[in-house]
Amino acid sequence: MTYADRLDAAIASLGNPCLVGLDPHVDSLPEEYAVVRDPKAPRAAKAQACSAFLRGIIEVAAGKVPAVKPQSAFFEMYGADGAKAWEEVVGVARSAGLLVIGDVKRGDIDSTAKAYAKAFLEGSSPEDRGTTCDAITINPYLGADSVQPFIDTCARTGTGIYVLVRTSNKHSALFQDHGQPLLHEKVATEVAAWGAQVMGKCHLSSIGAVVGATHPAELARLRGLMPTTPLLIPGYGAQGAGARDVVGGFLGRGRGALVNSSRGILYAYKQPKYAGLHWKDAARAAIDDMIAEINAALSVPSTGTLA
Amino acid sequence: MTYADRLDAAIASLGNPCLVGLDPHVDSLPEEYAVVRDPKAPRAAKAQACSAFLRGIIEVAAGKVPAVKPQSAFFEMYGADGAKAWEEVVGVARSAGLLVIGDVKRGDIDSTAKAYAKAFLEGSSPEDRGTTCDAITINPYLGADSVQPFIDTCARTGTGIYVLVRTSNKHSALFQDHGQPLLHEKVATEVAAWGAQVMGKCHLSSIGAVVGATHPAELARLRGLMPTTPLLIPGYGAQGAGARDVVGGFLGRGRGALVNSSRGILYAYKQPKYAGLHWKDAARAAIDDMIAEINAALSVPSTGTLA
Repeated sequence: MTYADRLDAAIASLGNPCLVGLDPHVDSLPEEYAVVRDPKAPRAAKAQACSAFLRGIIEVAAGKVPAVKPQSAFFEMYGADGAKAWEEVVGVARSAGLLVIGDVKRGDIDSTAKAYAKAFLEGSSPEDRGTTCDAITINPYLGADSVQPFIDTCARTGTGIYVLVRTSNKHSALFQDHGQPLLHEKVATEVAAWGAQVMGKCHLSSIGAVVGATHPAELARLRGLMPTTPLLIPGYGAQGAGARDVVGGFLGRGRGALVNSSRGILYAYKQPKYAGLHWKDAARAAIDDMIAEINAALSVPSTGTLA
Repeated sequence: MTYADRLDAAIASLGNPCLVGLDPHVDSLPEEYAVVRDPKAPRAAKAQACSAFLRGIIEVAAGKVPAVKPQSAFFEMYGADGAKAWEEVVGVARSAGLLVIGDVKRGDIDSTAKAYAKAFLEGSSPEDRGTTCDAITINPYLGADSVQPFIDTCARTGTGIYVLVRTSNKHSALFQDHGQPLLHEKVATEVAAWGAQVMGKCHLSSIGAVVGATHPAELARLRGLMPTTPLLIPGYGAQGAGARDVVGGFLGRGRGALVNSSRGILYAYKQPKYAGLHWKDAARAAIDDMIAEINAALSVPSTGTLA
């Protein structure tokens, strides 16, 4: 089955398009993991604390949201120990029935892109079964021939990619708004065209795009340029965008996009709103609140299946 | 000491600007590692074969060239086993006195970029001493705020970055030539400005740029836009560019740039020119030939120190 169909089915059956970003900032981990905040703590202990914490979050997220998005950088910080923790977290999330979108933002020339596609989407050895991702994020700067190996892998293995189009950071305009049409519009047009190579039965492609919610007007315009492209929308919550800012990215009734929140869920226990709750209960409440808020903005029922 | 000064000193003392790219394609490994070409071979065995092969290459390269460039993708293919092999290879190369440029092409929003900078340039734990890189490659698509955390780390730790400006792949023009000025020219202008934050005593910056040799006219023009930026020039050898194509990237007498060859050195034993030689001797001969060819094109002495 294509990634697009698996994603569309998961969004429909869970009744919401929420994505929990797994960014284990070691300094923000709950008190029970405080020992690893010491810069001199062994690297393996830090990586294991991140893994244990995220397994708790996955337990809470499973059955509530369609997907999680581990951020590779926070694992790579711990070298080989971090890579082991990454495989654990991806494996546990997939076993729990969650789709896993690896936020790796890779991009390189053809032969190297093939190696990255193997690393994250296909696996290079029998041991990799169950620890590769359903989809990953991709940086388009190198051009079409750097993206094609990922598209080929998606078509062959039922996986997906999300190409960076417009990112949610403050100064993303510097290069992404260059030229006329704006660079990110040109990238969007290419992404839409590439998508025709891996269409699902749901009339969405497995070739998606990252479009930040911090630019709501653009979001609607880019949705127009990419009518069958699944969007991954970061920027909601801690990064400043609200539920109404993401509506323009959807195709109606909550289909065609995922809205990500990372810190707003993981470290909900630090927010006054969830004071007194155990970190896991705080994360659960924050997920419920996010689902309710996003679905209200989309005017879809906050529970049950989507049409 | 700044990365720029360390690099300049290494180029001067070794008398050449050659960079050996460490891309361990498992299918191209010499016969003694043939067992791991079996897709069912254990992942750890594949990673160890890559590591052992590259340690042989490092032995040959040390004392001849100033730097090596391991390509992260070919290690990431083997998950946690690959990450372990990466640390081994980086550690062995640094111990052998080589500068190590990690070809990782990372780029992400601020907080994530900080994590990548820790992962590759600074280390997050005492165990990381000696296994982080002297410099890494960076993708600029997200803008200035995504690059700044790396610049800050470079200034604090005496490390460097090479920002992708113009890549050596066939279709790099798609986005890199967008707009007027061309996007890659705009990126070059920004890289030159960022460089002022981390200048070495050698009047070069620690903030470098990747500019492909497969576009020789551009190379000279971009050198003009980035007069104090160290360049990393891929594309020589297997990718098609010759020694004369790289000359425009230099500041005179072999300073200010590194020319990379990966497959042309690592798998020299497959070339008719080096038939009959053990793979290590073939790599040694290929390095000697590259040094002679590049230095001849630059009109600098092929042995001894550079002025």
